[in-house]
Amino acid sequence: MRAITIPQPGEADVLVVSDVEAPAPLPGEVLVDVVAAGVNRADIMQRKGFYDPPPGASPHPGLEVSGRISELGEGVEGWQVGDGVCALLSGGGYAEQVAVPAGQLLPAPRGVPLQDAAGLPEVACTVWSNVFLTANIQPGQWLLAHGGGSGIGTMAIQLAKAVGAHVAVTAGTPEKLDVCRQLGAEVLVNYKEDDFVAAVRTGTGGHGADVILDTIGAKYLARNLEVLAVGGRLVVIGLMGGRRAELDLGMLLAKRAAVIATGLRARPAAEKATIVAAVREHVWPLIESGVVRPVIHSRHPLEKAADAHREMEASTHIGKILLTI
Amino acid sequence: MRAITIPQPGEADVLVVSDVEAPAPLPGEVLVDVVAAGVNRADIMQRKGFYDPPPGASPHPGLEVSGRISELGEGVEGWQVGDGVCALLSGGGYAEQVAVPAGQLLPAPRGVPLQDAAGLPEVACTVWSNVFLTANIQPGQWLLAHGGGSGIGTMAIQLAKAVGAHVAVTAGTPEKLDVCRQLGAEVLVNYKEDDFVAAVRTGTGGHGADVILDTIGAKYLARNLEVLAVGGRLVVIGLMGGRRAELDLGMLLAKRAAVIATGLRARPAAEKATIVAAVREHVWPLIESGVVRPVIHSRHPLEKAADAHREMEASTHIGKILLTI
Repeated sequence: MRAITIPQPGEADVLVVSDVEAPAPLPGEVLVDVVAAGVNRADIMQRKGFYDPPPGASPHPGLEVSGRISELGEGVEGWQVGDGVCALLSGGGYAEQVAVPAGQLLPAPRGVPLQDAAGLPEVACTVWSNVFLTANIQPGQWLLAHGGGSGIGTMAIQLAKAVGAHVAVTAGTPEKLDVCRQLGAEVLVNYKEDDFVAAVRTGTGGHGADVILDTIGAKYLARNLEVLAVGGRLVVIGLMGGRRAELDLGMLLAKRAAVIATGLRARPAAEKATIVAAVREHVWPLIESGVVRPVIHSRHPLEKAADAHREMEASTHIGKILLTI
Repeated sequence: MRAITIPQPGEADVLVVSDVEAPAPLPGEVLVDVVAAGVNRADIMQRKGFYDPPPGASPHPGLEVSGRISELGEGVEGWQVGDGVCALLSGGGYAEQVAVPAGQLLPAPRGVPLQDAAGLPEVACTVWSNVFLTANIQPGQWLLAHGGGSGIGTMAIQLAKAVGAHVAVTAGTPEKLDVCRQLGAEVLVNYKEDDFVAAVRTGTGGHGADVILDTIGAKYLARNLEVLAVGGRLVVIGLMGGRRAELDLGMLLAKRAAVIATGLRARPAAEKATIVAAVREHVWPLIESGVVRPVIHSRHPLEKAADAHREMEASTHIGKILLTI
């Protein structure tokens, strides 16, 4: 079968279409004929050689797909050949077929084109596990989502609003902030023009952010801590701004606050299945009722994966970038 | 009434017995005739001028007492004049009388001398709120308690063991480590002789600590992070080793771990009441059945409060230091 591989680390043009052996489902797995794959920043890190796949994962890129089940592995129950699904993967999604543990499957939501469902698993699982399961956001609390125009940002805004929380976002262009506003964000900060600490303080009436979802890391640590409310939870899920920074434990203590860093990909399958089950229970009804919708920026054919990566690296996209098979 | 006051910040001898106005219980409060007061490191910080009482609190030192209720404020239910109690305070405990919100009262546990009950509220509430409510330690997990011989340490060891967790401790003398061992700690590290990271790694079979209870702060931050297990929670409740240190968010992310800093004193009364209620439900039965016992190092009369502070500053004590009225 055809799959995108990374023969050596480098810029986007190292991504090539290769003929690789088709996967076979192990016991407890299903084989999915892929319709589309979501592109994630972690794929770019992997392409550059900074993010090795966890042990046992496919060496090829791709953390989520949509498609149809073409084969059931031993012992799989609750799924049928032909079912439209999307799935959270530990790798190998930029391909015609992928084998995935049944616990990481979600039914393609009603009302969403099967192709677009490829953009849901990573953002829904990331936002639900971090903002809800880990940071336990409550109705009336303030979420600050950095990168409000990203796939994760657009999902975080919608899910937080759906449970009655308030949302502040940062983004780098007026176009992105406009989409964030349409999705329900109430405090909109262009980080290229304004200091987000002052803007979020003002916008929240001095309260600050109860939960911060951050993909920047070191560069924002001190400012995130400054804008955190008493009892606040800073959840770091990316390190685009570096990994090491000074932490003021005195301020953390005065605020009775927490800094949590976490990721999805390296989690054991059982933890992923728990998160996927929670997403199916809590997020899927919101998508099927139209309260929350996938925001898709663009679709590229599989063989143009390099274009998709260049587009993500330019950071002008709003929502998800997909590869179609 | 007589109370210890701090006319100006300084060394232990600034503590003086003064004649101050007796407190009157506000609605929802009770008046307690104090039998004994617990001494805490926060009192020393306050004495030195580094830790101002929170707004609305007594300006005088003392965060916990035992005694008998001598008056009920308006609207207090469930308590009677004459009840033997102990209480978590926001200040003013080094005194003959103290007024305390009813939500911060605990009955003096059966089987514990009323005087010794003064040593329970701070350690029981601190350990329960941090190790259990915040860090959610589970049976079979490893707790690392720094300062295992302190009041907090001796309570943390016993409570963690009581729920089926494993315990590692650090302490600075063989005598302290011996008491920790008797209380149930399985990995004993003399931090003056050994590196706790290597010792805890070895002692836990390479697993590391699932929960760390730390009063050191900056000086231990990097090493605490190093010894944290995947999914671990570092809870910082003191800053004896400074407040600012570099945090490696990359390591935190690789471990899917959390750094949480918190304290009891500045919490709103409603949060204190929630913690006190949880302690009464979960910790009190363990004390009354003898599974967990208060560890009292010494008792000093109120007018010798300076001696009690000097003893705590020398750090040779094991368990709690009390003032008796």
